[in-house]
Amino acid sequence: MGNGRPLILVTNDDGITAPGLHALVNAMSALGDLYVVAPDSPQSGMGHAITIHNMLRLDKVEVHGDHDWYQCSGTPVDCVKIAMDKILPRKPDLCVSGINHGSNSSINVIYSGTMSAAMEGAIEGIPSVGFSLLNYSLDADFSGAAHVARIVASRVLEKGLPQGSLLNVNIPSLPLEDLKGIKICRQAMAKWEEEFDERIDPTRRKYYWLTGKFVNHDRGEDTDEWALANGYVSVVPVQFDFTAHHAIPFLNEQGYELNKIAR
Amino acid sequence: MGNGRPLILVTNDDGITAPGLHALVNAMSALGDLYVVAPDSPQSGMGHAITIHNMLRLDKVEVHGDHDWYQCSGTPVDCVKIAMDKILPRKPDLCVSGINHGSNSSINVIYSGTMSAAMEGAIEGIPSVGFSLLNYSLDADFSGAAHVARIVASRVLEKGLPQGSLLNVNIPSLPLEDLKGIKICRQAMAKWEEEFDERIDPTRRKYYWLTGKFVNHDRGEDTDEWALANGYVSVVPVQFDFTAHHAIPFLNEQGYELNKIAR
Repeated sequence: MGNGRPLILVTNDDGITAPGLHALVNAMSALGDLYVVAPDSPQSGMGHAITIHNMLRLDKVEVHGDHDWYQCSGTPVDCVKIAMDKILPRKPDLCVSGINHGSNSSINVIYSGTMSAAMEGAIEGIPSVGFSLLNYSLDADFSGAAHVARIVASRVLEKGLPQGSLLNVNIPSLPLEDLKGIKICRQAMAKWEEEFDERIDPTRRKYYWLTGKFVNHDRGEDTDEWALANGYVSVVPVQFDFTAHHAIPFLNEQGYELNKIAR
Repeated sequence: MGNGRPLILVTNDDGITAPGLHALVNAMSALGDLYVVAPDSPQSGMGHAITIHNMLRLDKVEVHGDHDWYQCSGTPVDCVKIAMDKILPRKPDLCVSGINHGSNSSINVIYSGTMSAAMEGAIEGIPSVGFSLLNYSLDADFSGAAHVARIVASRVLEKGLPQGSLLNVNIPSLPLEDLKGIKICRQAMAKWEEEFDERIDPTRRKYYWLTGKFVNHDRGEDTDEWALANGYVSVVPVQFDFTAHHAIPFLNEQGYELNKIAR
């Protein structure tokens, strides 16, 4: 440390043993000094959850390479918060999250622990990027995704990002030579249609598994879904100002008033 | 049902026994037919978490009043999803969440299970509102907040909301007569500065509690924080398109290119 090299915080939501995290660590090694702070167990779908009704464990662990690895019992967002307060010697130059096993395109950005960790980095004022490979398999080939991650991370280290924004990078599960390029996109207006799978346990009580069908009615060719379906890496700039600014005039016209008498 | 009255889904993140939920149910009773689907235990800080690595329980319970009450073992977002698939006779006319015990203003919208439930309602195409009282106490006085909730919910049922938006309503902990009015606001650019409280357990291992200091450097008088500090109810329209549209030209100028050779 103190050698002028960039300081990079690496985290994920699939947990400290996930191959996607190790691929990302390898990809970042040439770019700076790394601290890895990741959940001690899988945390997919945790969104922007934080741990406020339970205590947290944090342990330094031996994994591999020259880097400092820590595992935390909390969520991906907890990992970023505790790294900032208890681990990092200074504010890092970059926060990267992933490489996620599975897509975080379109509406999945909202449910994703990977993207929430990157968003927490951005809230802390750190240039931040989440990476996801469109392949849920534990033995997916991360080589193309790792190459993309290095290109994007280098560019962000060099150029920075507009204030209040981070990047959501999704990568088709294709060999590097078959990737068509990188497209800057908007989030497609897609959603999941829920289908809960109903089952009966050995004591005859019902239980449910969340499943669903991904539905994209957004026909725009400027969306992440379009880019991914056409063999491009999608890069969506994401913000944590959730205000629907366009709705403010509409609501003001309606005259929301505090009538203290009428019940 | 089938009587032409609005159908209203009521949920929260403090759990089915929380006084704030019961205050909201009472406030909504005059406006339509209610289904209450709430977590079976407190779920504060769960953000937009969903349950994908565990099964869910769902049980109809007897609470009070003429309404149908269900408790679910999942997160607030799970509650909305399972209500849509397994409980509601049709798509509801309104989804309300809360009344949360504590503020969900500014950046808290991101961590909040209350707001994530409302956001999930909006993703499902339901006009949706989250309500929060600026008082964490279990025996807080919800009468003013309940009055506000009824006014806002009536207006939303009557006028609807712009597509892709929902409302984040925060209410000062004041008697109704001391509330100054309702202000349509933007989310203040505030954040938490983490301070993890380090302790030692009986086996001499370290553990941590997440605490923090809320810091608002946003001096705007059009923010939710300003409104609340000045005795107004804040209403922020929120969107689930997280795209930082203003950042797209900046990124395009930088020419993110897929160099397949350089490592």
